[in-house]
Amino acid sequence: MTHTNAIDRLVTLLAKLPGVGKKSARRITYHILDTETSYAIALADELSLLHKTIFCCNECGGYTETNPCHICTDLRRDRSIICVIERAADIRIIEESHEFNGIFHVLGGLIAPLEGITTENLSIDKLLLRIKNNQNTKEIILALNPTLEGDTTALYLQKVLKEYPVEVTRLASGMPVGGDIEYIDRLTLSRSLRGRIKF
Amino acid sequence: MTHTNAIDRLVTLLAKLPGVGKKSARRITYHILDTETSYAIALADELSLLHKTIFCCNECGGYTETNPCHICTDLRRDRSIICVIERAADIRIIEESHEFNGIFHVLGGLIAPLEGITTENLSIDKLLLRIKNNQNTKEIILALNPTLEGDTTALYLQKVLKEYPVEVTRLASGMPVGGDIEYIDRLTLSRSLRGRIKF
Repeated sequence: MTHTNAIDRLVTLLAKLPGVGKKSARRITYHILDTETSYAIALADELSLLHKTIFCCNECGGYTETNPCHICTDLRRDRSIICVIERAADIRIIEESHEFNGIFHVLGGLIAPLEGITTENLSIDKLLLRIKNNQNTKEIILALNPTLEGDTTALYLQKVLKEYPVEVTRLASGMPVGGDIEYIDRLTLSRSLRGRIKF
Repeated sequence: MTHTNAIDRLVTLLAKLPGVGKKSARRITYHILDTETSYAIALADELSLLHKTIFCCNECGGYTETNPCHICTDLRRDRSIICVIERAADIRIIEESHEFNGIFHVLGGLIAPLEGITTENLSIDKLLLRIKNNQNTKEIILALNPTLEGDTTALYLQKVLKEYPVEVTRLASGMPVGGDIEYIDRLTLSRSLRGRIKF
């Protein structure tokens, strides 16, 4: 092994990224070495800038460069619908569906007692405060993953929100577009059936 | 879409890495945002340091922090065998097989006329010079990929090296360990047969 500590250090750091194993980390490192210095410098600059430029929106909790974020300050958006999501990154995914014109609320996680995440670690009080402060709030969409943690959190929120004059909805769960009934798991199929809609 | 230029810029840069598409680049970016600042800073530091610390060994062309590299200066290594490889990254892979105790020579590419890479772009003259300067050179192992470009380059090198008193060998080509005859392609199987060895 060519004894180059700088390479090993970069490989170790890169291997911590999601979806990047040790082999990919090496491949990436050597690719960066093979590429012009300017690329590595640009990447380094953006990385060191990232946490300085991006912070969490005081209102919704999404990542932003301005406070409040451009969604929370956009007058064309329907402030009566709040879409509750697990992570700030989910905002982008929902925005790209072009199906939602309301505002967001980032929980910052899901209830997972085994990992030590309880309701107190999530931004639930703030959500309730937002509903109290905005009397126009009509609907809360729970856009949480259809997993054990997501379902638990959704159930908890539904219970808490009963005391507020808002409608609570969830994302539909069912077969993905392009999916095949033959290969779909039983739970998803039963949810698809239960949640069936009129043609 | 949350309008954050810093995020988009980092995603664009990351998406240029091998094996990282736009989706992974985003996932990585948000992961870095969710992680402590220190990680992003450490990664930035290593990246900006990389090209300053690592350069190509004057002898073999491998990546190193000292010149010549620790392989070229290691007296325990057999300087009579030179393993010719395409890229500096290949050294590490061969070193990890623990099967080779000679020295290396990085070609810096493979002959690929369609991509404009000819023999003049490769470190071939330097290889010949190394052989001339070291009268003890006995064997040149061509450890090039068994692809069209690798085979072309190997054939060319074999022709050039005929004028030198060295034995030219190639890596064996055949079935990968754990492979299945049923699923192996015809070319690989025929190479396995041609290159068969005595039990």
